[in-house]
Amino acid sequence: MLRYASRDEKHLPAKFYNLKADLPELPPPPLHPLTRQPINPSDLEAIFPRSFIAQEVSLEREIPIPGKVLEAYSVFRPTPLIQASKLQAYLGTPAKIFYKFEGVSPTGSHKTNTALMQAYLASQAGVSTLSTETGAGQWGTALAYAGSLFGVKARVYMVRSSFRQKPGRRIMMELFGGEVTESPSPTTDSGLKYYQENPDHPGSLGIAISEAVEVAVKNPDIKYSLGSVLDTVLIHQSIIGLEAQSQCREIGFEPDLVIGCIGGGSNFAGLSFPFVRRNLKEKATTKYLAIEPEACPSLTGGELTYDSADSAGLTPWLYMHTLGKDFIPPAIHAGGLRYHGMAPLVSQLVKLGLVQAKAYAQDKIFQAAELFLKTEGILPAPESAHAIAAVIDEALQAKKSGQPASILFNLSGHGFLDISAYDRQK
Amino acid sequence: MLRYASRDEKHLPAKFYNLKADLPELPPPPLHPLTRQPINPSDLEAIFPRSFIAQEVSLEREIPIPGKVLEAYSVFRPTPLIQASKLQAYLGTPAKIFYKFEGVSPTGSHKTNTALMQAYLASQAGVSTLSTETGAGQWGTALAYAGSLFGVKARVYMVRSSFRQKPGRRIMMELFGGEVTESPSPTTDSGLKYYQENPDHPGSLGIAISEAVEVAVKNPDIKYSLGSVLDTVLIHQSIIGLEAQSQCREIGFEPDLVIGCIGGGSNFAGLSFPFVRRNLKEKATTKYLAIEPEACPSLTGGELTYDSADSAGLTPWLYMHTLGKDFIPPAIHAGGLRYHGMAPLVSQLVKLGLVQAKAYAQDKIFQAAELFLKTEGILPAPESAHAIAAVIDEALQAKKSGQPASILFNLSGHGFLDISAYDRQK
Repeated sequence: MLRYASRDEKHLPAKFYNLKADLPELPPPPLHPLTRQPINPSDLEAIFPRSFIAQEVSLEREIPIPGKVLEAYSVFRPTPLIQASKLQAYLGTPAKIFYKFEGVSPTGSHKTNTALMQAYLASQAGVSTLSTETGAGQWGTALAYAGSLFGVKARVYMVRSSFRQKPGRRIMMELFGGEVTESPSPTTDSGLKYYQENPDHPGSLGIAISEAVEVAVKNPDIKYSLGSVLDTVLIHQSIIGLEAQSQCREIGFEPDLVIGCIGGGSNFAGLSFPFVRRNLKEKATTKYLAIEPEACPSLTGGELTYDSADSAGLTPWLYMHTLGKDFIPPAIHAGGLRYHGMAPLVSQLVKLGLVQAKAYAQDKIFQAAELFLKTEGILPAPESAHAIAAVIDEALQAKKSGQPASILFNLSGHGFLDISAYDRQK
Repeated sequence: MLRYASRDEKHLPAKFYNLKADLPELPPPPLHPLTRQPINPSDLEAIFPRSFIAQEVSLEREIPIPGKVLEAYSVFRPTPLIQASKLQAYLGTPAKIFYKFEGVSPTGSHKTNTALMQAYLASQAGVSTLSTETGAGQWGTALAYAGSLFGVKARVYMVRSSFRQKPGRRIMMELFGGEVTESPSPTTDSGLKYYQENPDHPGSLGIAISEAVEVAVKNPDIKYSLGSVLDTVLIHQSIIGLEAQSQCREIGFEPDLVIGCIGGGSNFAGLSFPFVRRNLKEKATTKYLAIEPEACPSLTGGELTYDSADSAGLTPWLYMHTLGKDFIPPAIHAGGLRYHGMAPLVSQLVKLGLVQAKAYAQDKIFQAAELFLKTEGILPAPESAHAIAAVIDEALQAKKSGQPASILFNLSGHGFLDISAYDRQK
């Protein structure tokens, strides 16, 4: 078997996959934040472009990828599918391990997949600016890049502590023409309150979301953009799994276990949903494992209930696994996983017993990341290292039991711009 | 034609290529730094492992790659060969442009190729520690990685200004078990002199080399390691061009112009020497273009003469293009190109008229880097961006003249750990 699948454009799908068309039972609908009644699509128009809302409510199995977005994807897609043969050999495991490497995206993570679609949809709707929040910066960078391709300005509210400690992604956003504001900022009512208290307020994702939503609500040509959680985002990320299926066929690899790290749910869902379809429709018995940080365990420690998607309660209430909108996760390095809630569609699969979840402590994920760097030669993002830690455990389990296993996981991003997290002198 | 060559292991050569076997005229020999007479191989034993010296003086055309080194290469090699189709389209050029991407190496640059061989040779010779210098850190990181695989400690003297400003590569070196010392340090006579004057002395590559050579001379189980310039290093880097030839054959691409950036010469020589062989032996008419910074123009502004390879004059004198061993280049971001001299073998090809050189200013190379990021989706190292700037000029020239061109260039490393160089707020 080849160690690398080809990156031939034949692996690029023409359509996204929408899991909702195949689910035996849909999650309960989003609620209006004020009335707590099922929301009307038109209620969302103050925040999101109409074309985005149309995808959010769609029950079509296949959503065509516009030609211009396919063209943009082809800069870096198909992303590589690589066998972790050196990691396998180091572990002495009978398991076969393959990973889809989304870190070759121009911004270094899978976030670019939905950013390109969202920027395209906004440009088609005549939106001049997309506002958004970002923590460590992966999402903001992706939206700034996508905006630069489709003529949409990205206005990014970046949590101040990250803005000051990790300038790398701020620099990337500005390279792509993005406008980056330290949050809390004096430019919005939501931010001003905190800024007046303390101009050096470290900020939080919750406050940054409030700032980004506020400017969208107040300006008719600005819309808000979110990088995870929503059904539409998961539809866009299905390109990862669709490509992986085509590449797996090419090299004759059939995974029986699919693993991804999970925060809001987008990279995990992106890889796994096209495979889950086979469980639902073709009696496949593939297993799915979502890995979250012990410090922010929405699936393993949260409750399945209605909750707000943001701390300020401005966004729709979603039926999801949540730690509560007021939960403040400790400042772990995997900033992309520090979210109190979970994508409703992932929550639904957990409820249906199709997806299992496990939580890992930070020290273990950094050990896994270092082993991956030393064996496979790629420095993973701290988020992606959660998946690696679980892959190692599963591969060692296969060794112990003598049972072969075929594991596919999502290496959702590289860690070069997170290098300070790896500093042993700290 | 496919946009990506395969990364099948069949492209990995079993032997390095040594240009000296095919040169019509060898460069004048290295001289002993004290006697200024042609050096005896045994004179080098105080500094280098004997197995390294054997390769340095070899005139064999092919040098076998040891099995353990091939195994280490296969973690990341063959590296990708990619068509810059989006850059081509943006420029509207009839030129076909392909690049060999060495940035997928675990340490992010081509330096890993020779580091692995040097660490292997040292381990076979029972050397416990390799000492070396590093500026921005690409070379030190590569040697620390290679050392971690072959059980050889890397003791790296890192120029203090880089050590403090760019912690990313220092962190990488430490992750790989390397020992990193700010230079000038109080641990050597060479360093102590400057350290006593000023404990915050910013340092220079010249001082760092002196420190690294001094510890090798004083400790029998420590040898010194150099990341460019020497014939042996160029032999090891030939793996880039040998792979590229195999991949080009696979997809039916035949370059008529090969371009690389140049500092000491290793990435340029690595890609081009296996092609130069065809000019020498098969009447090929391929052209070769070496791109250096205007701020440190050894080929376009230096003199071809004997000079010391280091500032302190501890290493052999080499016949090469040089700006003089006391030349201090301005602090451009492309730290890997800030070297006063040039590999003697590259100097010889320039003298023979086989290689042309051009110098580019820093503002132009950063424009080229940004265009490459926005079109091809890869952030290049500032060094590699020199090659890109020239590729763009050649592609535009092809557009103007209507003449097709087939350009192959070396994207020698990624720029994520150089991100501060891209900061527009500076």
